[in-house]
Amino acid sequence: MIRPVRYEGGVVHLLDQRRLPAEERWQACRSVEEVARAIETMVVRGAPAIGIAAAFGVALAAAGAARGRGGGALEPGGTPGEGAGLEEVVETALRRLAATRPTAVNLHWALARMEGRYRQMRSAGAGPDQVAAALEAEARAIQEEDLAMCLRMAEHGAALLPEGAQVLTHCNTGALATGGHGTALGVIRTAWRQGRLRHVWVDETRPVLQGARLTAWELQKEGIPHTLIVDGAAAAVMAAGRVDAVLVGADRIAANGDTANKIGTRMLAVLARHHGIPFYVVAPWSTVDPSLPSGDGIPIEERNPEEVTGFGGVRWAPAGTPVFNPAFDVTPASLITAIVTDRGILRPPYIEAIAARARRDEPGRGEAARWGRSPGC
Amino acid sequence: MIRPVRYEGGVVHLLDQRRLPAEERWQACRSVEEVARAIETMVVRGAPAIGIAAAFGVALAAAGAARGRGGGALEPGGTPGEGAGLEEVVETALRRLAATRPTAVNLHWALARMEGRYRQMRSAGAGPDQVAAALEAEARAIQEEDLAMCLRMAEHGAALLPEGAQVLTHCNTGALATGGHGTALGVIRTAWRQGRLRHVWVDETRPVLQGARLTAWELQKEGIPHTLIVDGAAAAVMAAGRVDAVLVGADRIAANGDTANKIGTRMLAVLARHHGIPFYVVAPWSTVDPSLPSGDGIPIEERNPEEVTGFGGVRWAPAGTPVFNPAFDVTPASLITAIVTDRGILRPPYIEAIAARARRDEPGRGEAARWGRSPGC
Repeated sequence: MIRPVRYEGGVVHLLDQRRLPAEERWQACRSVEEVARAIETMVVRGAPAIGIAAAFGVALAAAGAARGRGGGALEPGGTPGEGAGLEEVVETALRRLAATRPTAVNLHWALARMEGRYRQMRSAGAGPDQVAAALEAEARAIQEEDLAMCLRMAEHGAALLPEGAQVLTHCNTGALATGGHGTALGVIRTAWRQGRLRHVWVDETRPVLQGARLTAWELQKEGIPHTLIVDGAAAAVMAAGRVDAVLVGADRIAANGDTANKIGTRMLAVLARHHGIPFYVVAPWSTVDPSLPSGDGIPIEERNPEEVTGFGGVRWAPAGTPVFNPAFDVTPASLITAIVTDRGILRPPYIEAIAARARRDEPGRGEAARWGRSPGC
Repeated sequence: MIRPVRYEGGVVHLLDQRRLPAEERWQACRSVEEVARAIETMVVRGAPAIGIAAAFGVALAAAGAARGRGGGALEPGGTPGEGAGLEEVVETALRRLAATRPTAVNLHWALARMEGRYRQMRSAGAGPDQVAAALEAEARAIQEEDLAMCLRMAEHGAALLPEGAQVLTHCNTGALATGGHGTALGVIRTAWRQGRLRHVWVDETRPVLQGARLTAWELQKEGIPHTLIVDGAAAAVMAAGRVDAVLVGADRIAANGDTANKIGTRMLAVLARHHGIPFYVVAPWSTVDPSLPSGDGIPIEERNPEEVTGFGGVRWAPAGTPVFNPAFDVTPASLITAIVTDRGILRPPYIEAIAARARRDEPGRGEAARWGRSPGC
């Protein structure tokens, strides 16, 4: 199984997704700063995988402090320096990692869970070694729970597809984006294993080309029949009657079902509605933010213009061309046929389905509720 | 003024649009085969510019035959060889050039016009030198009439835009794609000169990136405010209320108004309808094919998979990834607010508007009607 984040011997190893598919190269992160930069530069990407990497970043910081090294070898100018206290090290790590990507809710959820575990251990009077061990165990639990949730979502989602389904997907929502298996691509993987899937259309997903590079790579590894298209060709494929369902992931889902996901998702939802094709969002319950009334409140990260003016060292737009490069867009709930979560399938009206689900789950969750809503997938 | 095709001293000079914007390099074509390959490899692109280049290709062939060189220095294996007769040279040129791009109707229209002029001169007993001179004059006329038509279309189209308009456009439909000025981008250019235009959103237009490379280059040269986006971001910009109209060109328009244009156009039409934004097709009347009942009959060219798996020597998809790379898609007439032509603005129902326009124009066109419907823009 493809697992993009590993933690061994106090080092966070990340499969460098910028180099895929040409090269399978692992980047070793020995400090919080290195983990943060890896998240910012998209060595690791995908909302759940980012949360997992950040959780291991906190574990790494605590392990360093326990050994008296202040959270790993910091860059010059970094704080805290050698020998900083555990409290300061952990808090600095949480702040630095939280600042890496503003849109992904799983990142903040995972950090809140790590912070909760930290406070719990400190309240219990645990020493640095015990805290470090507990934080490592917590990060590993986030990763394993994520995989288990992906498998549950995949079962729910696959049941929605007709026999011999042709589906279209966007970006990479696979094993590379999660603890393993994937969200939307996890549904595709499971449907293929069940023999229900005929074909996958893969949007290349400009600007960072996660579809062309990562989804095509995962599908090729599993021998799942697929065809790569440019994002603008989705309408032509739908018009030809070659798409039975659109499956996408999510970075954040508001209380009314409005969904932020990779730029281009809103386009697919509008196209699916126009062509009479079901449009499914596949995301763990942790992606739902019941405190956010609608998609209007979701902050949309704008990324480097150079992602649009070229790729991989080739520049094609004229020097000085102004660029708008939002990483995400918001798909209104009204265009979403169903939201597939690890806790079951949500159907419209989402505002009621989400409120009901939140009420049902929260009271029984005890200690976990203090750390955040649920593990990310 | 930018003019992408020049004919001087029996040589067709093409501004190599694959090298723009990095380099303004002209390619000299001294044989029909060189012109045909330049069209196939998109040294020149844009339906009207292709028609103009092909017309000069025929003129070049006739000039070569008149000088006894059989249509320029042919590649090894090419026919006809040195000293071939004028008839054979011209017919071979017409066939070779017609085979370069199947979708663009202007190419076939321009070649039909050149053939008509050739037959007319031969019927009148003209010698090779007279025929060659007449064909050169005909090609120049196609180019000049094209520019004049672009200017007329631009006037019609600009009048549709509100004051301070923000528009979105796809691909390159500018001076580079035509005899000069452009179709959809010609409207934008004229609206800017009239002070009615505030801002242009430029789709990068994967896979060949004509928006990022060529439209951005033309707009930068004229100082027209613009912002480059990936194709998948159009929905986000529309949702933000930043688009007052979508303007696109056309490669072929059926009798019912269905329009074939660059892949991604159908997506924009669906998005515009969903967001309540007018969607205008800007194309010369020569793009309309009244003999074609609907868009179902338009042949869609599939291009090289390598256009999708990478760009400019950089490969990003895994080796062996299957690709679907249609150059065009079909936008149904029901999604088009108006079709702006050099003969005025067509409004729905297009089947009636096009039939009425065709009936009004054809009877009075005399000799010209035998060569095709109208000059391309």
